[in-house]
Amino acid sequence: MTLVVASHNEGKVREIAELFAPFKIEVKSAASLDLPEPDETGDSFAANARLKALAAAKAAGLPAIADDSGLEVKALGGDPGIFSARWGGAEKDFGLAMERVEEALAASGVTDRRANFICALALAQPDGSVATTVGKVFGTLVWPPRGSKGFGYDPIFVPDGYEQTFGEMDPDQKNALSHRMRAFEKLIMGRFDEVA
Amino acid sequence: MTLVVASHNEGKVREIAELFAPFKIEVKSAASLDLPEPDETGDSFAANARLKALAAAKAAGLPAIADDSGLEVKALGGDPGIFSARWGGAEKDFGLAMERVEEALAASGVTDRRANFICALALAQPDGSVATTVGKVFGTLVWPPRGSKGFGYDPIFVPDGYEQTFGEMDPDQKNALSHRMRAFEKLIMGRFDEVA
Repeated sequence: MTLVVASHNEGKVREIAELFAPFKIEVKSAASLDLPEPDETGDSFAANARLKALAAAKAAGLPAIADDSGLEVKALGGDPGIFSARWGGAEKDFGLAMERVEEALAASGVTDRRANFICALALAQPDGSVATTVGKVFGTLVWPPRGSKGFGYDPIFVPDGYEQTFGEMDPDQKNALSHRMRAFEKLIMGRFDEVA
Repeated sequence: MTLVVASHNEGKVREIAELFAPFKIEVKSAASLDLPEPDETGDSFAANARLKALAAAKAAGLPAIADDSGLEVKALGGDPGIFSARWGGAEKDFGLAMERVEEALAASGVTDRRANFICALALAQPDGSVATTVGKVFGTLVWPPRGSKGFGYDPIFVPDGYEQTFGEMDPDQKNALSHRMRAFEKLIMGRFDEVA
């Protein structure tokens, strides 16, 4: 059986291929199938994951999985949220994005530095049905950024119960804790947040 | 997250634990949790898998997975079917069970030796919801039995497109083809045969 990963990020595709390999599920990327990349016009992580997965499933005639993830900062009312990548500008410069978050926190005058990463996963079938799950990991923002192992906002995020930022952790340790793995666990265990 | 495997067969539990390990899902056996083993009173493979998974999920307060599998012989109207293990008597002697199948085929006077293995999987939640999938692999029965690598009826079953019996194949090769892996693929891909 073949599963399409509705992503043009080959690193993400490889990671998902490794998860599904024991089940003898062949994973193909949207890029390798020359599938169009829909605009992420949803108003939530789950909505964006849904529209990406559905577009790929229908275009390929195969089940497709997609994710959408980002950082939610409590004192900023959940920002940058679904615009997490866009806070880095056209270049998706996360150094810039982290600075903007820190500036917004300073400007807010609030001392609460709690934040969470969030990942929505959607698994769509060619017939249009979609199941979604959402995983979160809670923690605190630090400044300045520390570590160069992760990506995105990892260098300023320290998960609750740990001292290191995600940027300082080994990939295995981060993956075991991460919002993405929590969303995958729920998906694999059939604990869907939404089925439509 | 923890998933209960509603089986007292430690080999089966280990096999399932390996499948779920990449997702950081911890797998526990019904035996290790001291869960009761319900009688398999269902009238189908799916019904038996459902009742085992549900009983475990409710008793443990955790998601639980169960399977039920067997051999269906076309010329015997699908027998031994859900009674596949019982054809081996109280001792579950599959040497005896294979002989009984061969005798029944001879007695039927039919030359059609087609058969399929079937595996039903059920994934139950503590709230009582259950998703099931069914996987099949089609082939032909041979006599006498060949090979000692599998279990059950494997030594008399040659899958379509192959020369070796399941009893002669390496576990990796058999697993990639098997009814059980097909049911798992469908489960993981959210292609449920039934949700209730």
